[in-house]
Amino acid sequence: MPMHELVLRKADGRALTLYSRRVIHAAGADPPAFQPAPRSSPHFRWHPLLGEWVAYAAERQQRTFLPPPDRDPLRPSDDPAIPTELPVGDYDIAVFDNLFPSMSEEADVPPPQIVATESARGHCEIVVFAQQSTYSLAELPLDHLELLIEVWARRTQVLAARPQIRYVLPFENRGAEVGVTLHHPHGQIYAYPFVPPIPLRMQAQQLEYHRAHGRSKLEALIDAEIAAAKRVIYLGEHAVAFVPAWARYPYEVWIAPRLAVPDFGSLGARHRADLARSLKTTLLKYDGLWQSPLPYILAWYQAPLDGTPRGAYHLHAQCFPAYRMPGRRKYLAGTEVAAGMFVNDSLPEERALELQAVVVSL
Amino acid sequence: MPMHELVLRKADGRALTLYSRRVIHAAGADPPAFQPAPRSSPHFRWHPLLGEWVAYAAERQQRTFLPPPDRDPLRPSDDPAIPTELPVGDYDIAVFDNLFPSMSEEADVPPPQIVATESARGHCEIVVFAQQSTYSLAELPLDHLELLIEVWARRTQVLAARPQIRYVLPFENRGAEVGVTLHHPHGQIYAYPFVPPIPLRMQAQQLEYHRAHGRSKLEALIDAEIAAAKRVIYLGEHAVAFVPAWARYPYEVWIAPRLAVPDFGSLGARHRADLARSLKTTLLKYDGLWQSPLPYILAWYQAPLDGTPRGAYHLHAQCFPAYRMPGRRKYLAGTEVAAGMFVNDSLPEERALELQAVVVSL
Repeated sequence: MPMHELVLRKADGRALTLYSRRVIHAAGADPPAFQPAPRSSPHFRWHPLLGEWVAYAAERQQRTFLPPPDRDPLRPSDDPAIPTELPVGDYDIAVFDNLFPSMSEEADVPPPQIVATESARGHCEIVVFAQQSTYSLAELPLDHLELLIEVWARRTQVLAARPQIRYVLPFENRGAEVGVTLHHPHGQIYAYPFVPPIPLRMQAQQLEYHRAHGRSKLEALIDAEIAAAKRVIYLGEHAVAFVPAWARYPYEVWIAPRLAVPDFGSLGARHRADLARSLKTTLLKYDGLWQSPLPYILAWYQAPLDGTPRGAYHLHAQCFPAYRMPGRRKYLAGTEVAAGMFVNDSLPEERALELQAVVVSL
Repeated sequence: MPMHELVLRKADGRALTLYSRRVIHAAGADPPAFQPAPRSSPHFRWHPLLGEWVAYAAERQQRTFLPPPDRDPLRPSDDPAIPTELPVGDYDIAVFDNLFPSMSEEADVPPPQIVATESARGHCEIVVFAQQSTYSLAELPLDHLELLIEVWARRTQVLAARPQIRYVLPFENRGAEVGVTLHHPHGQIYAYPFVPPIPLRMQAQQLEYHRAHGRSKLEALIDAEIAAAKRVIYLGEHAVAFVPAWARYPYEVWIAPRLAVPDFGSLGARHRADLARSLKTTLLKYDGLWQSPLPYILAWYQAPLDGTPRGAYHLHAQCFPAYRMPGRRKYLAGTEVAAGMFVNDSLPEERALELQAVVVSL
């Protein structure tokens, strides 16, 4: 089925793009501006001991914080008295520029500091999963999730075409426990002007393996996980979800196509459909685990845009729940935050057993 | 003043060492065993995409969790009916082997997995700052903090002497918000059989600078911070505390001797005294900021034990508060957890101004 795209611009200049399986009729008036925001001018400073960029976006302290449901800024509105970020109209998914971005193409050149500085010329956008605030990602119908995967592919293509962008990361922070400031289910996309530290470390391992074996390292690991048959929680014809043998978090799950593709744009229709099934299965199992919504961070890793061999990379999601048992948060404390060595208080095999036992219906 | 040390062994075989400025008289009977713990056998698995070890310590799920004050396991007890971790006696600081360690010299060889495994032959110990549970680290008298610095030096020396240890990290998680499971103020020391990921990244930057300039990189940065005179919150003759120009967290503070020394053991008495003042000043300013105890993670970085030039390293603490404004947690969300790029919603200069304005008396 085709995907329709309608590109709009909000009154304050920010981009708003609507997606649907059906033709989208423009929603009459211009989309609302929601609320005035200070002009964003985030900047980077170089961390001289870690060797990485840190982003500074002081305006973000003022951002919208857990508004009541009748003030949901992600609800479509045609009432000028209660503006929101979205217009009414016949669309399924909406993407717009973050009002409080950590990176912005229009960022000014920052003043010098005792360490190197740069204008933070990346891009941050919001992906509203559905018009209804009641649908969590897990609850969206499969065909809606397939559309979302196509939207992620399209946004990656649009952002990757900008010459300064080197890495596009779609992700979802789910639940107030992981810092979500708006209840209406939504994800984000960060487009970085460099390969960020964690993808950079994965890149080193992936490139080394690809040079030696001519193959995606994760594809070989997925073969090993399927052969081990202990930690897999979804196995389809084209996609798989599993608690990796190397999980850093309790209930950590990786979701991926079984055969390596470098990015969302390289997926065929049947691969998208099975990836949607593996994603929905994983998230429904999370919510079914303790009969309550499990907060998590879900991030999708794609090939960097830096000219390295795309055959080394393997599109996949890593999902990190915020709890280690009912009522007990998984904290990142001294060893994780200060040393970078993760301690997992549970064995991946045991957590996988628990997730396998949760029966879900798609 | 001399430091006295009394080495004991608990009934369950764990080491317990008491420290004081005075001679310590052994506390009569054997120190209590507190509670039976399963034999710990943590292991490492290799994370194949990040290229780092992950520790698995499944027994830790059962660890003591926020007990009521009358069940404080870090309170000295001579009542066999209410055993705790500590004996009564005339000492100031106690160090004992963690009952639920993430690493242990006695760990067994783990079974093979689809990724490399190793027994987690490091060491985890608890440092009880004072017998009274009412003293936070900030509230300890300066001479007690100086003793603590000597204890950190002694423990580093003891642990560094074990042939498999490559890195010793003293740290404190303060507050339930960062995962503390016991209220009685205490810190921890992790001794790793490898240089962990974050010190390893700092090592690369420090060695490169040391090769080019024959000097500690942090010492040069401290000179620049003192010259900039904008972000310094404590400046003594021998020690300094500042919000670094490259802070990743709001209110992040670094505490260090002004001249590079590789570890606690290299500090002279006057340097210890000024480092104690800089530490106490920082922590009192944290608590004075919003008139309430600020939760934080405080970690002390020393030279690795891997034979690299010790002149490259500079003992220092990094302190990461858990809040970005009153009532608003600093969350590590998608970009930090999944991409490793930190977004700081505030400028270091502004946060330093706030901390400078907090008047404290030592």
